[in-house]
Amino acid sequence: MNVLLIGANGQIGQHIVRLAKEKNDVSLKAMVRKEEQVEALQADGTEAVLANLEGSVDELAKAMQDADAVIFTAGSGGHTGADKTILVDLDGAAKAIEAAEQADVKRFIMVSAIQAHNRETWTDSPIKPYMAAKHHADRILAASKLNYTIIRPGNLQNEPGTGKIQAGEFPEGGAIPREDVAQTVLVSLTNENTHHQGFDLITGEQTIQDALNNL
Amino acid sequence: MNVLLIGANGQIGQHIVRLAKEKNDVSLKAMVRKEEQVEALQADGTEAVLANLEGSVDELAKAMQDADAVIFTAGSGGHTGADKTILVDLDGAAKAIEAAEQADVKRFIMVSAIQAHNRETWTDSPIKPYMAAKHHADRILAASKLNYTIIRPGNLQNEPGTGKIQAGEFPEGGAIPREDVAQTVLVSLTNENTHHQGFDLITGEQTIQDALNNL
Repeated sequence: MNVLLIGANGQIGQHIVRLAKEKNDVSLKAMVRKEEQVEALQADGTEAVLANLEGSVDELAKAMQDADAVIFTAGSGGHTGADKTILVDLDGAAKAIEAAEQADVKRFIMVSAIQAHNRETWTDSPIKPYMAAKHHADRILAASKLNYTIIRPGNLQNEPGTGKIQAGEFPEGGAIPREDVAQTVLVSLTNENTHHQGFDLITGEQTIQDALNNL
Repeated sequence: MNVLLIGANGQIGQHIVRLAKEKNDVSLKAMVRKEEQVEALQADGTEAVLANLEGSVDELAKAMQDADAVIFTAGSGGHTGADKTILVDLDGAAKAIEAAEQADVKRFIMVSAIQAHNRETWTDSPIKPYMAAKHHADRILAASKLNYTIIRPGNLQNEPGTGKIQAGEFPEGGAIPREDVAQTVLVSLTNENTHHQGFDLITGEQTIQDALNNL
């Protein structure tokens, strides 16, 4: 399976790049926006392509040529200004979705944020505009013709992954190591039970495969 | 025709409030977010209702009870921060659209921005996030079950209206007095040729009715 990874330079993205090398059924290409990032990835044995989420749909579609699946884990995160939240997390995602349709990519996995689908749980905090941007990016994906999976992780931790998760609806929140998010993304690629599904993701008691099979 | 006006306190909104009084076929209710705005409008003979675009869909649907049409001309404009652009221009609009569907309002007129539908004309300027927010609000409306009209005016001027417009596609831009935008919104309410349409709006040579009939 040829997979284009958008956001390869992010913290979850870096885990995905590393973990994908252990999977024989995944051939990963990393999309990054700086030439030196391409060179660093290639020096590390990772295929890489230069493209920018603030560029055109055509540019993104070109980067997706021959991809069977797209993983979107790019994001301004809530640390940059809300202007970038609109241009990257919302419109960049929307353009990637349009590009995937244009390039005839069948599968699209979105890394979102816990409860992004449920406005009622959002609190009046500086993260609220980020939640709204993710909310609408996810809705654009769900309304597309792509076979999507929307993974909405809880508070992201840098601790090593446990390999044990819960997948479902968690309005009360939760947390999860970035490494487990990355592994869940990769397992979802080939787990048909995740097709046309969105779910919150936090640390739990089940293996990733079991948790996804029980969605 | 019972019309709920969202953004009654804005510059275009104030023209709409005034001009609607001259139209026998329009009974306007102004939605504003502060109690003193309700009182000021009522003192001026305008029906008013208190509701907030940053509130819930249910709150907005309640304000829309018995409305035949909604006019959306609220907006942070590009002068407030991009956080409000997401929460008002994008998600506030999305919630108003959901509320209109919920309240069984048939008609929805959106005041957008010239070329908001066409990313290729957007320049790298501080207004770009605003354009992206309007772009996606308009797309949400066009994908809804509402009978919509999306009016995308050019650079807004405070000069008195001329009553003469052009409606169509103007990638090269243009300008128009706010009063003419307001009048075009009101004429569109009952002009069937504007149903399920979006158009750029700039100053021109035709009467508003003629320009809309020639869309």
